[in-house]
Amino acid sequence: MTKNIQTAIVGVTGYAGAELARLLLHHPRLKNHPPVFAGRVDTKDLAHGGVPLAEIHPQLGDNAGAANLKLEPFSWELLTTRGVEVLFLATPHEQSREWVPEALKRGLRVIDLSAAWRLTEAANRAVYDFADEATELAASTQSQAVYGMPELHRKQIASAQLVANPGCYATSIILALKPLVAAGLIDLDRGIVADAKSGVSGAGKAATARTHFMYAADNLSAYSVFAHRHTGELLEQAGVSGCQIVFTPHLLPIPRGILSTIYVHFKMAQTHESVAQVYREFFRDSPMVRLYDKSLPQIQYSVRTNYADIGFQLDSSGKRAVIVSCLDNLLKGAAGQAVQNLNVMQGWPESEGLE
Amino acid sequence: MTKNIQTAIVGVTGYAGAELARLLLHHPRLKNHPPVFAGRVDTKDLAHGGVPLAEIHPQLGDNAGAANLKLEPFSWELLTTRGVEVLFLATPHEQSREWVPEALKRGLRVIDLSAAWRLTEAANRAVYDFADEATELAASTQSQAVYGMPELHRKQIASAQLVANPGCYATSIILALKPLVAAGLIDLDRGIVADAKSGVSGAGKAATARTHFMYAADNLSAYSVFAHRHTGELLEQAGVSGCQIVFTPHLLPIPRGILSTIYVHFKMAQTHESVAQVYREFFRDSPMVRLYDKSLPQIQYSVRTNYADIGFQLDSSGKRAVIVSCLDNLLKGAAGQAVQNLNVMQGWPESEGLE
Amino acid sequence: MTKNIQTAIVGVTGYAGAELARLLLHHPRLKNHPPVFAGRVDTKDLAHGGVPLAEIHPQLGDNAGAANLKLEPFSWELLTTRGVEVLFLATPHEQSREWVPEALKRGLRVIDLSAAWRLTEAANRAVYDFADEATELAASTQSQAVYGMPELHRKQIASAQLVANPGCYATSIILALKPLVAAGLIDLDRGIVADAKSGVSGAGKAATARTHFMYAADNLSAYSVFAHRHTGELLEQAGVSGCQIVFTPHLLPIPRGILSTIYVHFKMAQTHESVAQVYREFFRDSPMVRLYDKSLPQIQYSVRTNYADIGFQLDSSGKRAVIVSCLDNLLKGAAGQAVQNLNVMQGWPESEGLE
Amino acid sequence: MTKNIQTAIVGVTGYAGAELARLLLHHPRLKNHPPVFAGRVDTKDLAHGGVPLAEIHPQLGDNAGAANLKLEPFSWELLTTRGVEVLFLATPHEQSREWVPEALKRGLRVIDLSAAWRLTEAANRAVYDFADEATELAASTQSQAVYGMPELHRKQIASAQLVANPGCYATSIILALKPLVAAGLIDLDRGIVADAKSGVSGAGKAATARTHFMYAADNLSAYSVFAHRHTGELLEQAGVSGCQIVFTPHLLPIPRGILSTIYVHFKMAQTHESVAQVYREFFRDSPMVRLYDKSLPQIQYSVRTNYADIGFQLDSSGKRAVIVSCLDNLLKGAAGQAVQNLNVMQGWPESEGLE
Repeated sequence: MTKNIQTAIVGVTGYAGAELARLLLHHPRLKNHPPVFAGRVDTKDLAHGGVPLAEIHPQLGDNAGAANLKLEPFSWELLTTRGVEVLFLATPHEQSREWVPEALKRGLRVIDLSAAWRLTEAANRAVYDFADEATELAASTQSQAVYGMPELHRKQIASAQLVANPGCYATSIILALKPLVAAGLIDLDRGIVADAKSGVSGAGKAATARTHFMYAADNLSAYSVFAHRHTGELLEQAGVSGCQIVFTPHLLPIPRGILSTIYVHFKMAQTHESVAQVYREFFRDSPMVRLYDKSLPQIQYSVRTNYADIGFQLDSSGKRAVIVSCLDNLLKGAAGQAVQNLNVMQGWPESEGLE
Repeated sequence: MTKNIQTAIVGVTGYAGAELARLLLHHPRLKNHPPVFAGRVDTKDLAHGGVPLAEIHPQLGDNAGAANLKLEPFSWELLTTRGVEVLFLATPHEQSREWVPEALKRGLRVIDLSAAWRLTEAANRAVYDFADEATELAASTQSQAVYGMPELHRKQIASAQLVANPGCYATSIILALKPLVAAGLIDLDRGIVADAKSGVSGAGKAATARTHFMYAADNLSAYSVFAHRHTGELLEQAGVSGCQIVFTPHLLPIPRGILSTIYVHFKMAQTHESVAQVYREFFRDSPMVRLYDKSLPQIQYSVRTNYADIGFQLDSSGKRAVIVSCLDNLLKGAAGQAVQNLNVMQGWPESEGLE
Repeated sequence: MTKNIQTAIVGVTGYAGAELARLLLHHPRLKNHPPVFAGRVDTKDLAHGGVPLAEIHPQLGDNAGAANLKLEPFSWELLTTRGVEVLFLATPHEQSREWVPEALKRGLRVIDLSAAWRLTEAANRAVYDFADEATELAASTQSQAVYGMPELHRKQIASAQLVANPGCYATSIILALKPLVAAGLIDLDRGIVADAKSGVSGAGKAATARTHFMYAADNLSAYSVFAHRHTGELLEQAGVSGCQIVFTPHLLPIPRGILSTIYVHFKMAQTHESVAQVYREFFRDSPMVRLYDKSLPQIQYSVRTNYADIGFQLDSSGKRAVIVSCLDNLLKGAAGQAVQNLNVMQGWPESEGLE
Repeated sequence: MTKNIQTAIVGVTGYAGAELARLLLHHPRLKNHPPVFAGRVDTKDLAHGGVPLAEIHPQLGDNAGAANLKLEPFSWELLTTRGVEVLFLATPHEQSREWVPEALKRGLRVIDLSAAWRLTEAANRAVYDFADEATELAASTQSQAVYGMPELHRKQIASAQLVANPGCYATSIILALKPLVAAGLIDLDRGIVADAKSGVSGAGKAATARTHFMYAADNLSAYSVFAHRHTGELLEQAGVSGCQIVFTPHLLPIPRGILSTIYVHFKMAQTHESVAQVYREFFRDSPMVRLYDKSLPQIQYSVRTNYADIGFQLDSSGKRAVIVSCLDNLLKGAAGQAVQNLNVMQGWPESEGLE
């Protein structure tokens, strides 16, 4: 029988952190082993040993055994004392850049939800404005990172010390594209368009002009055109180059969910069945991908699940396809995929605690 | 023929200010006489003589003659130079407390959208935490203020130097209650309940935890129970006392609109017609109130109009009534009513520029 | 060890039916014992033995063991053959009136989500326009019905043959009022106001003018003023009379959730603690009620849970209170409460499968 | 001075019809000349000479002179008696196919909002399943039709007897593409993608499963992939062929507004300024198109206006562009454009009554 493991979450105050807490608190393998919650704690709360989790997220207050859980001040000693083995970071990428090398040194396995370690070192530095120096330590840490998409890297994740949990947009697009690219079906020279739309939780918990209800409601807007940071993941993981794909994100007036509409040209005419066959083959052992056969996925069916839903339609020539890919940006696009990675790392069934 | 007048708006950056700008720019009596827009202007914008209005509110950019309008740095000299006669303040109440006495001294007529001068001096100081001293000047300024609800104070507004534009919740409730209170129909001892619901624009433009899309969307919450500042206006203007009415505001997941559901007991049994008659009589000369006879108002029908919509239903005993009152919080609840007051002050038709 | 039981659902196509299916499919005591789904099945689907559940509700398609579930044509023989012991009816009340007597005769225990058997026979016939004759059978069936609110009737539910599952509005109001009425705190002569707001799923799955997105979105409307059918439940179960309470429902522009704002006068001045004490006492053994102490419930925190959330605030005199009660209309207001009743009937922990 | 003209609207009950009525009732050239409203009238309403407009659309009830307007039973005699000169049809396309030939025979000028006459006869019959025979009359009627997009066909519209008012999606895409296609900038062989998103009013007033609040809210779905009827208009009017463009519509959870994200490849590298110059040139005399220079259009800024808003961004190579085009589907996408066409036909300023 598998022994229980001790997890910790840094960054439980955000949306992804809250979902992660909920998932781990209900995970069948972690019963009676709630995560340690560590982070910044105000002086006034220190006196009480931390902030009650139920105060940060009222909806978490009644989960089995959660009544007395607290956010405690982060320290490496805290993690050691509690016997933490797996550390989840739902922190800004700057913080992950700083903490991950130390965590690895201390023998922790890390699942990092930030963008800090998703790309090769060179690509990473080109995209993000990392504050840390390009030291050898950084490079060697990066080289240990596995891109945490079990559908692509299941085996490496199983033995990884550092899992770089994918971005939400990237997940929805890579899963839709990779099988077709890998099978050599797509005429890359004619270009791929990935038109993606995400709910407001993707914009984070900070109250800004863009997350104001009056801005987001009854609206739709494109942003970061030709400039979104997830593009790097698309390029490396889907196996396309920057001149072969255009990715445009949009802000949808809904709380959660992503729908990506992806346009490809095939080298040779395909049938619906020939394409379906490629997808089925690729995702044969992937319990968290649902392939739509007759209809197209919609946001409403994937929200609040950990599934990536994929469907497509060909034109009459069989040379063009529109692929629709849906997922919940906080689950398969963040916290759910993190737990899926945990399952893979522990050798548990991949979808455990996620259905 | 009426001569054109020169207006100015301070506070055009907020939601009510933007609506006010739109209304004045389209007002038939103010053609070719756009308001002066005055406020705080950054140093870098000073070089260009101010901030283009179209940059602050893109939707205002194409109004007739508005292409070159700018937000200019506020100064009394600016107002004088431009010949401003009527000053609209869509500013925080602290600022209105400070500026109104000076404006009156300079001979300007003021329509103040803030809460600074709506109550009698005593009530005002009890409710708001005014920074200014309780000087004689403050008291004398207050004594000149007319509560800007034309349906109640048309005559005084016509000659007022200072009009205190009512609060949005207050407008929706006072208009529904005042006719019945004035006619002596209501049994005040049994208590009145005013359960009011407002769209998010009522919470202002500041990005806060409460105006975040993720908080407001798919939600409803009560707030300021037994403690909302508009209560003072209800008491003074509807003619009831604090122990006779309970007013509870709620935050609705919509951009704009208020619906107040008001519960009263009558002293004696009424018929639908006897109550309707009281309303018709009271609002005989009020073009901006619409009385619903067979159905009840809904937010969708009053939004983007300056109407206050009122309907009601009696129970079978004829001794209890539910009154439903709807309006657009930014129009009849703020900017629209301000223009209605301008019309009254200028002797123009009360609904001009508002239909 | 408890033996597994066999359940059946009639009416799985509606919103409450879908939630009920989801809950029973995940219920820890019903693992590997999915419900029988019975209803009307088209001739063309008959050939395949019914309609796949995943076609009716795509979101149910991936639940453990649900892949091959079907909606089968209803017949009493079907229920007998499958050994059904507990029958859930999520049907129109006319159908429940017809089927329940037969089901009881056949020895089934019935949990009826419709309004067919919630009231005493006399009240029932006054409110609903039942097609069935006022026979002795109807009267005797009615007399066996227990109002399915465990917080009030736990003991009778445990041994009931027929449980009449409460209405959603009624649940939110009765739970808030009953403790205070039972404790004799409320001055009923001064009247109670229950101003309730519900999401659109409460209006049912039928596509009508009122459920059209263009009508419901960005809107709020009151309806059935002095005339809502749930009033009967309020009167009988909360222990008040029709002249003592006014209940007004409103249609909120959100998918699900109810918030009721309830206004009461106390006979004598109370403190926050004295009222809190009454609630705590009343709900001491009720795991599905959450009492809010410092803040007020909001729809966002109760949606997608089976909790009824209750909070309140007193005015400075201690003689008036505003009570806020929130729940998910499809869970604690329908399917969740039905499962809670099942738990009570089976002697299982009341909140099992509901957290 | 221009003389007043008499208009008539058939189909005022729908969303576009209501907007059309509102615009015509406020049009400065039509003061005191409200349209005749003709359509199907129930027998019971016939007795009163028709249905009051305010009953069909409460929000129209208070427009100047609209209090007594009625929907009258359609007959050609009615139009003759009232001296109707311009007939607006906001009817299903089958009805427009039937009525337009007769209307032209009677000397009326027609602005048809349906899809009945937008395409060349051959294309039209391929796309729509017209019930009328392919008679000579149909062909000759078609040959008189002018596609009602003033930005493209101003001159022909001015003298047209029959104006085929464009589709909403088509308008948003054609206006964005046509200038670049006409200037020969686009590499058509590499394909164009038009990913379009529309609010629910675009799906019409009928209550269906798709327009149910519970389906549309918090959701996004693609539909009619490779099969939307507006594609024909795109091909003919934008000057591209079916193998050069893919158009995918999506249903947005908002009441109104369209945003189209359009992806093109240029034959040769362009600069932002070179592309901007092409647009400026093309729309030099088009008052209802707003070009965005530094930012991209959003739905919130075009909704409730008759503007088509266009902005774009180039990638670093200057060979690819993302164009964003926004409009209000009921205004520039339907009723507003119809009034714009009326203005052109009458020789009035093109934007009159539309700002």
